[in-house]
Amino acid sequence: MANDLSASGRSFLSGLFPGDGAVFAPEELVAFAGDAGQKEAAPWAAVRPESEEQLCELLKWADAERVPVYARARGTNKVGQTVPIRGGVAVSFLRMNRILDIDPRDFVAVVQPGVVTSEFQAELARQRLFYPPDPASIKISTLGGNVSTCAGGMRALKYGVTRDHLLGMRAVLPGGKVLRLGSRCHKDVAGLDLTRLLAGSAGTLALFSELTLKLLPLPEASASALAGFADFETALAAAAGVFQAGLLPSALEFMDAVTLEALSREFTGPEYAWLGRARAALLFRLDGSAAAVRAETQTLGSALDEYAPVFLETASGPDEEILWDVRRAVSPSLFHLAPDKSGEDVAVPRGRVLEAVRGLAAIGERLGLRTACFGHLGDGNLHSNILYDRAKGQADAARQAKAELFKLVLSLGGTITGEHGVGLSKKDWLADQIGPVELDIMRRLKAAFDPHGIMNPGKEWA
Amino acid sequence: MANDLSASGRSFLSGLFPGDGAVFAPEELVAFAGDAGQKEAAPWAAVRPESEEQLCELLKWADAERVPVYARARGTNKVGQTVPIRGGVAVSFLRMNRILDIDPRDFVAVVQPGVVTSEFQAELARQRLFYPPDPASIKISTLGGNVSTCAGGMRALKYGVTRDHLLGMRAVLPGGKVLRLGSRCHKDVAGLDLTRLLAGSAGTLALFSELTLKLLPLPEASASALAGFADFETALAAAAGVFQAGLLPSALEFMDAVTLEALSREFTGPEYAWLGRARAALLFRLDGSAAAVRAETQTLGSALDEYAPVFLETASGPDEEILWDVRRAVSPSLFHLAPDKSGEDVAVPRGRVLEAVRGLAAIGERLGLRTACFGHLGDGNLHSNILYDRAKGQADAARQAKAELFKLVLSLGGTITGEHGVGLSKKDWLADQIGPVELDIMRRLKAAFDPHGIMNPGKEWA
Repeated sequence: MANDLSASGRSFLSGLFPGDGAVFAPEELVAFAGDAGQKEAAPWAAVRPESEEQLCELLKWADAERVPVYARARGTNKVGQTVPIRGGVAVSFLRMNRILDIDPRDFVAVVQPGVVTSEFQAELARQRLFYPPDPASIKISTLGGNVSTCAGGMRALKYGVTRDHLLGMRAVLPGGKVLRLGSRCHKDVAGLDLTRLLAGSAGTLALFSELTLKLLPLPEASASALAGFADFETALAAAAGVFQAGLLPSALEFMDAVTLEALSREFTGPEYAWLGRARAALLFRLDGSAAAVRAETQTLGSALDEYAPVFLETASGPDEEILWDVRRAVSPSLFHLAPDKSGEDVAVPRGRVLEAVRGLAAIGERLGLRTACFGHLGDGNLHSNILYDRAKGQADAARQAKAELFKLVLSLGGTITGEHGVGLSKKDWLADQIGPVELDIMRRLKAAFDPHGIMNPGKEWA
Repeated sequence: MANDLSASGRSFLSGLFPGDGAVFAPEELVAFAGDAGQKEAAPWAAVRPESEEQLCELLKWADAERVPVYARARGTNKVGQTVPIRGGVAVSFLRMNRILDIDPRDFVAVVQPGVVTSEFQAELARQRLFYPPDPASIKISTLGGNVSTCAGGMRALKYGVTRDHLLGMRAVLPGGKVLRLGSRCHKDVAGLDLTRLLAGSAGTLALFSELTLKLLPLPEASASALAGFADFETALAAAAGVFQAGLLPSALEFMDAVTLEALSREFTGPEYAWLGRARAALLFRLDGSAAAVRAETQTLGSALDEYAPVFLETASGPDEEILWDVRRAVSPSLFHLAPDKSGEDVAVPRGRVLEAVRGLAAIGERLGLRTACFGHLGDGNLHSNILYDRAKGQADAARQAKAELFKLVLSLGGTITGEHGVGLSKKDWLADQIGPVELDIMRRLKAAFDPHGIMNPGKEWA
């Protein structure tokens, strides 16, 4: 692997990416060094391709010269997937940001990877079309980043994750050849499924140049219900009762007691007094035809009522977002309880959520730290937060708690990452979850795409 | 590759699979030679494993001895995926047929590959749980076969295909090592997605020993609507109108004019007189909570009414299946029109269905053959039938029509196979759809799993 950018390499990149398309100044490269996680490392250069042809030329050169290549867009990843830990070239997709086609007859869209997901969804909504995946970063993250991490989100319970809405793509291989995968067909089983292998591959196999996405008709209506309960067990029983009532919500979020305590510091009006009384809360969203949503909202309310909620409010239309404001405030609210937090996106089998939440609280107690859990109950995907104060010397205890959390989750049959990926932050734990036979196959597959190991080196299994 | 079974190989297999677990008699091997397609080839031996340990020993031996291995279960595949074209050992999964776990809290089931899909679904229904994939072969085909082909079915429109309901698996590699993939988590993005790569791999990479499947709550109710229209264009407009009305049916099937003509020979009672008047028909199923289905059935009826159907009937509960009896009779009914047929499971982008159906009719006209299309309109997945009479010397024209159909479909951005796979029957056309760069990557991936090429050799890209 190359150790630095040669003069000829610099000249090559300047020629291929004219004007401000190539960046070499150290003070500018800082912008390409990190993501939403804690690690940073500056690349030797950053480039802003505008076409697939440029990607081909870039990867032909990088492969020949053994230069590391790190794909990035908005850098919202939390585990260091985009961090150029071995230097090399950071490739920003923000200028490949065109929606190429939205076809209401095919129920298909074709986009460049740099399109911001929420902007894409807004454009679809104008045509009464729908692309369900909704990672928390949706307002700023891109479709390419979402596919690269197989992003999840709140609607996964009903609609699945990013992978489930990907029909095909064009991608550029190290060496510069173009892969054309999948099709505009909603069903296609010709050959091995490379399309879904690339979903979640985190920049380790190829660079995406075009994505073909499956669309649905936009649900006509939605409604939400926010319910507070006396304890966590009751909340879990209520969630089970909703499924037993024959409902499949598009979202089912939960907040534990510590999370509600943090929220009660944020929302101080009398209408939020219940936050101080409840020890767990659930937030549901239903969607579908207007008639169905009306009927199901009643069913949902009745189902929840059986579990004696200390608070229950349902809303549809514009009022609905008032309920979701509570959920959206969770992450910043936690800073009312401690100045630092370490948040992990673990997941467990759905029936093991209680054990995971209690187990994390016990880990925290043992180490003198508070912990807060919230997240996607319907997927068993827990945003587990370890609250601490670096200034009080609690950073080591927080690191210890994180390691014990992963151990706990794996003992419950869970995963160290339900949404964010492994990247740098979880690399040390990957082998605790995935065995040597499986990692060996992953490395062989990686070598089939990237024989010289230039794609996002230093991450995950790579 | 070995050319025949050695005496020591025979002895090894007899020891590993005692009693009738190993089969060597030519008259018995005939039962392992074919599938629902037209090609047959007898293996050198067939075995009936009952445990993963046996699979490990088998694949250790077969890899060392370079003996081809062909997985099979009920043999419902139509393209020769299970046909032992190079001899070797046929591995029947029918004795690995236990449901190991159905967990209503995790919404997860763990099964052996030989479980029959409809029996699994019936067991789930007793617990008010639901596994949506419903290939036409569901009453006899197995979950292992379904995963191996990434089987589709009627409910794919709303629920996706088999791949979308697969959370993890255990599989045995050539050489005998066990792969443990995925987890019981509904979200898991640790490492490359090998689980979905194995879905649809058609026995070319590994043998499945255990499958972990995602479950949903059983929808409380369903309703169906069968509508006949004056012409195909009107039927397509009506289908579009249903989506515009905010509905997402779980199934949307269509039948073209020739298909209806065949059905009118089968259903001769006065209540079926409309089959002679309609030139296209649509069949919808809605599912969900009882209240939602009631409301949506009305919306569906109103939406269809706008397209002046020559026939419209909605039904729920036991009456519903009377409507579906019409759809189920399609395939056998076509023999009223011709003694032979060549059926293909092509798919096109959803907006190109009209062109595909008309194009196939034009191909038939040119070659003096009738053609009939029906299938999963919501996925653009057309069961395209070329009707002919071998005794009248039309077999060559039918073969020609098939080749022209594939050409047509590819020109529309479609796929030669939406559900069945490539196998032997479509092997000659695979390179027309998938380019050399992609096939090269597929072959490299195959080699990562199966370096000596013993798994289902002679099929697809392998």
